[in-house]
Amino acid sequence: MSKAKSAYEEAGVNIDAQDEALARIKKMVAATATPGVLSETGSFGGLFRPEISGMTEPVLVASADGVGTKLMVAKMAGDYSTVGHDLVNHCVNDILVQGAVPLFFLDYVGTGVLEPEAMAQLVQGVASGCRENGCALLGGETAEMPGFYQPGDYELVGFVVGMVDRPALLDGSRIQPGDHLIGLRSSGLHTNGYSLARRVLFETLRLGIDDTVPGLDDGRSVGEHLLAVHRSYLVQIRPLLNFQELHGLAHITGGGLTDNLPRILPAGCGASIDLGSWQVPPLFQVLQQEGGVDRQEMFRVFNMGIGMVMVVDAGGVEEMRQALLAAGEHPVDLGRIVKAQNGGVTYGRGSDV
Amino acid sequence: MSKAKSAYEEAGVNIDAQDEALARIKKMVAATATPGVLSETGSFGGLFRPEISGMTEPVLVASADGVGTKLMVAKMAGDYSTVGHDLVNHCVNDILVQGAVPLFFLDYVGTGVLEPEAMAQLVQGVASGCRENGCALLGGETAEMPGFYQPGDYELVGFVVGMVDRPALLDGSRIQPGDHLIGLRSSGLHTNGYSLARRVLFETLRLGIDDTVPGLDDGRSVGEHLLAVHRSYLVQIRPLLNFQELHGLAHITGGGLTDNLPRILPAGCGASIDLGSWQVPPLFQVLQQEGGVDRQEMFRVFNMGIGMVMVVDAGGVEEMRQALLAAGEHPVDLGRIVKAQNGGVTYGRGSDV
Repeated sequence: MSKAKSAYEEAGVNIDAQDEALARIKKMVAATATPGVLSETGSFGGLFRPEISGMTEPVLVASADGVGTKLMVAKMAGDYSTVGHDLVNHCVNDILVQGAVPLFFLDYVGTGVLEPEAMAQLVQGVASGCRENGCALLGGETAEMPGFYQPGDYELVGFVVGMVDRPALLDGSRIQPGDHLIGLRSSGLHTNGYSLARRVLFETLRLGIDDTVPGLDDGRSVGEHLLAVHRSYLVQIRPLLNFQELHGLAHITGGGLTDNLPRILPAGCGASIDLGSWQVPPLFQVLQQEGGVDRQEMFRVFNMGIGMVMVVDAGGVEEMRQALLAAGEHPVDLGRIVKAQNGGVTYGRGSDV
Repeated sequence: MSKAKSAYEEAGVNIDAQDEALARIKKMVAATATPGVLSETGSFGGLFRPEISGMTEPVLVASADGVGTKLMVAKMAGDYSTVGHDLVNHCVNDILVQGAVPLFFLDYVGTGVLEPEAMAQLVQGVASGCRENGCALLGGETAEMPGFYQPGDYELVGFVVGMVDRPALLDGSRIQPGDHLIGLRSSGLHTNGYSLARRVLFETLRLGIDDTVPGLDDGRSVGEHLLAVHRSYLVQIRPLLNFQELHGLAHITGGGLTDNLPRILPAGCGASIDLGSWQVPPLFQVLQQEGGVDRQEMFRVFNMGIGMVMVVDAGGVEEMRQALLAAGEHPVDLGRIVKAQNGGVTYGRGSDV
């Protein structure tokens, strides 16, 4: 290739910048390798040999996700290093709720013109997430789409594949009235509700990314609040997956407690949540008040401080709670499974529940 | 929820439109189910039980991809029904080259405001592709990101997982000087070079999407040319995967013959391509002439009429060719593997090769 701008580059695609980014990325990817990985970066497809010895009937569990408009906050903050970690943790939680442990992850980055520094930050986040969760970053795709993306915008999509032995599959079918709901705390908004949160913080309150949030005395900036990394619950929950008393898991993403809990409830079962059982973190209270959002909608858009719900047989609750405390969690006694003709989630307080 | 616009909807996210699209999508997804599928649409992760009986060492092969700015052509044409099919076929080819047959596929659609009709068209294309390739559409994600995407823009990302028994893995290691290169024809640009092609056709030549291309007498419009579906080579090649004489496969995507063939060549081997062995389709000639693109760059940006290259032992070429002819292919005797210190692809004509 000549050093003059090629016709392809004039059309907006910079192959050399892609090559530079690819070299940095290769090192980060290599650091995520696990024993199952058979391929090197750059092969057409990633190769992974799953360890199936001892399994009676291995089942693959797969999920695809993005991080939504949290990406726009990353752009405002000029920091793309955390959204990749969000993405991996989100995907890992989504398959964990079916009892699966992640094997490998693939990412996709779409942008207008690739800036190697931003690209490296994005993949750095993905690689950190993969290492935290012990899953290999097996491959990915970077697409430069001039004119499709606005300058500085990066779309980030992730795919995870995990495995579970079929007898250990969690499908919610064992959930029954009387089961306890144990809530695990979120680290912030995780990856949902950002369109609404950005409107309230940046338009209604006219805050800047480095401002502190009025009414919150934690000293954290808007950017720090909004970019807090989506938690993975794999380390805490993995040792509990073999407990017969664990009847179900729900990852609280878009749709909140209201829409996500019913996804695992069998017919005739509802969830009764005690609003007095935990304190909704102050950031959500600010968003509710300043945004003029009613409580019903808040619980459908945001996680409200609870990122994962475990459904546990009453007889196993104490053992489960002790294990969670030992793992550093502050589990919430969120409520109970109740008989309910139409399923769904109801909210009450204390004795109303 | 009340019928008044919720605060979330005012921020640009329409949950009801998502629900309507989801209902239509569920039916299309259901039509792609294969015996391995254990989950229903809407569960957190998709469940798939791979058939591993008879395998000595099952290896998973995964790939992620997009369709690039072909999406912008779909928008111009107001037809989103084909790009999903492109995406599946592209991904399937990417794992086929390692000897893998697809198990399942997941998609991601990102947009500003979800239009149910466009969304249904996108997934219709994905579902068609899955059916053609016998792989299940196991899950996916739809993200509404107001302000991030321009109106009418849809990002589409795909992820495929396939399987191959390790002894049958194609990694190019058996490729040797003297092997023949058999080219399989592409249906058009497939999914690469669209930024350059759009610039030449829409800016340099100032054509409209419904115009015919000057110099081409096939009566097809610009839109028809550019939206021709990326071919899948699975049906033709799958029966040949067990031939010991098949030493390698290369999917000709971004980077063209020039960059994709070297991805499978062992050290000391190069590929010598006879430019007289096939006629480059007229559309590529128009792009080259009107775009002022030199030949070297054309072969790095476009597939030039060859979408897949098979590397075949000289002793197996005739049998392979007969099988391909019987499958309706018009295989091209593209060139040979040669000894080459620095690897790479060289182009010549007839006796120069």
